[in-house]
Amino acid sequence: MMRNIARLRGRLAGLGVTLRPHLKTPKSIEVARRVMDCPAGPATVSTLREAEQFAAGGVRDILYGVGVVPSKLERVTALRRQGVELSLVVDNLDAARAVAAHARRTNDPIPTLIEIDSDGHRAGVRLDDTANLLAIGRALHAGGAELRGVMTHAGESYACRSVEEIEVVAEREGAAAVGCAAVLRDAGLPVPVVSVGSTPTAHFARDLTGVTEVRAGVFVFFDLVMAGLDVCTVDDIALSVLATVIGHQPDKGWILVDAGWMAMSRDRGTASQRIDQGYGVVCSVDGVPYPDLLMVQANQEQGIIAVRPGSTASLPQLPIGSLVRILPNHACPTAAQHDHYELIRTGSREITAQWPRFRGW
Amino acid sequence: MMRNIARLRGRLAGLGVTLRPHLKTPKSIEVARRVMDCPAGPATVSTLREAEQFAAGGVRDILYGVGVVPSKLERVTALRRQGVELSLVVDNLDAARAVAAHARRTNDPIPTLIEIDSDGHRAGVRLDDTANLLAIGRALHAGGAELRGVMTHAGESYACRSVEEIEVVAEREGAAAVGCAAVLRDAGLPVPVVSVGSTPTAHFARDLTGVTEVRAGVFVFFDLVMAGLDVCTVDDIALSVLATVIGHQPDKGWILVDAGWMAMSRDRGTASQRIDQGYGVVCSVDGVPYPDLLMVQANQEQGIIAVRPGSTASLPQLPIGSLVRILPNHACPTAAQHDHYELIRTGSREITAQWPRFRGW
Repeated sequence: MMRNIARLRGRLAGLGVTLRPHLKTPKSIEVARRVMDCPAGPATVSTLREAEQFAAGGVRDILYGVGVVPSKLERVTALRRQGVELSLVVDNLDAARAVAAHARRTNDPIPTLIEIDSDGHRAGVRLDDTANLLAIGRALHAGGAELRGVMTHAGESYACRSVEEIEVVAEREGAAAVGCAAVLRDAGLPVPVVSVGSTPTAHFARDLTGVTEVRAGVFVFFDLVMAGLDVCTVDDIALSVLATVIGHQPDKGWILVDAGWMAMSRDRGTASQRIDQGYGVVCSVDGVPYPDLLMVQANQEQGIIAVRPGSTASLPQLPIGSLVRILPNHACPTAAQHDHYELIRTGSREITAQWPRFRGW
Repeated sequence: MMRNIARLRGRLAGLGVTLRPHLKTPKSIEVARRVMDCPAGPATVSTLREAEQFAAGGVRDILYGVGVVPSKLERVTALRRQGVELSLVVDNLDAARAVAAHARRTNDPIPTLIEIDSDGHRAGVRLDDTANLLAIGRALHAGGAELRGVMTHAGESYACRSVEEIEVVAEREGAAAVGCAAVLRDAGLPVPVVSVGSTPTAHFARDLTGVTEVRAGVFVFFDLVMAGLDVCTVDDIALSVLATVIGHQPDKGWILVDAGWMAMSRDRGTASQRIDQGYGVVCSVDGVPYPDLLMVQANQEQGIIAVRPGSTASLPQLPIGSLVRILPNHACPTAAQHDHYELIRTGSREITAQWPRFRGW
């Protein structure tokens, strides 16, 4: 984990941009403190619960990266009155007007970014909808909020099939945000922040001129989806689920373990990649992958381990009670199935600490 | 929920068998008390954490329905010493010997069932492996444990494509368990309990002669997978996720809500059914489904709602801030994403209670 963090921090420092890590992946103040610039941030979150929890842990500069709605503004104000520099995101005029009206009412110019849709993946103002972009910007700026800038997320980078494709998506992501910032600035509006980010684009963007900060989250742990994208190697994956062998079905070539989808999550993110890793890659308790050994099926509390279809690898001898580690498809949902992390140093089996996670909204 | 419980309880009473509800679905003592015969049970659980939590809530007759391994036996003994009638499951000779040795060592004849593989779906002794069945039975009975009986789970019933297929699977499930019980009894071994169960087979088994108890869990809430199997109707589904509209992408026909896979889980159980319901069916806040409206994609905290591909239904007008309810593919993983249930009466929006859930292992 520390190596993954150092790698991206070093890369972004070289490109002259700030890392605003997305803490929706770890949901742990202990991990947050190791990935942020300093104990106060900056940070990105995906829920107000995360904002509240990290604020309680001392984080002071937090971007709530999901489009806000009026019913959540009271919680926003409560945090800001505690001294948390919480900033918001909107992608439509109704939300912008509601934020501005709330800002006026509370006499607090809430900093707000406009989300840009750089790749058709999710939310955001369309790149060709300049009129809407300007209307939102003016509604915030003139209405009582603070127009903090623009942000976008290249969600399509997860569907890339090569590093070259990621580079193209990264370039498009940066250009979209920088271009929209220019449109707003040309209209006399302030745009101090130009925020982009996804773990793949953060690792392969070549030029971030005009971008001020990068958001990324899953890189802290990495996972099989990121390894399938060549953003990391399987060896970089810093999160695994420890499971115990509970049975065998030798005629089917199955080993059964006491970790099913409740422990791994139902995420099958590698199913659409070149190499489908089932519900995860099976490693020895020391973290070394067995050749072509996967969790091929998952019940709630039982996982079925078998050799990858088509492989000539043989099933390892793992008697009842043996321990294995399973690397996840997607670190965010797998970690979310657990209430804490158990820390081990690379190559060791000794648990040196437990770090709690939180959840909810 | 109360109607779903009454329906299965009435059905099984008519067939003369006990319901041993699987509490892995609700993980809530409040739900448990409404589905069990009495506050002491009987009940089924999928983890020792569930056993411990329900024991703390007063449940006294608990079957731990996942094959046990030696490293878990100390926790089993701790519960049994508190007066909990906790029974175990094994499907192999190594585990049976370990349980028997532990039973002797602790001077406690732990009641243990032999799991039978009735459909090749998961764990269990193969139906044609009579020698193994008898060896496990003798290892338990002669070794110091109590051979409590046999159990099986027709996991393949989830893959049925008609009620007639479920009836066939239910017949096979019962016959497998009753047949193995007869093999053991013919060898002079006691088999007081013959336990079968899955929600589909529990609802369509016609004759349970020789079966003493049925396990089922998801029927408490039901879900879209069960509706797709015709085990229930969509109207029977008693669990939904309340979400707020946060944005629109009109050119794509999208409505964005603040519930993504973190709220729904990554379960896509209907993807292999006749009707793929995406990440869930979208209803009004009063629980009435909009025509052909689905959560078609899910990010961590954003769901994308759209009309079912190919449908001519129109997108409802749902302004920013509107509330919708999403019915889940699979109640177990969706409920597991939440720390409590918020109770409403049918047709009401008023939350009358919060029931906590627990999780972990």
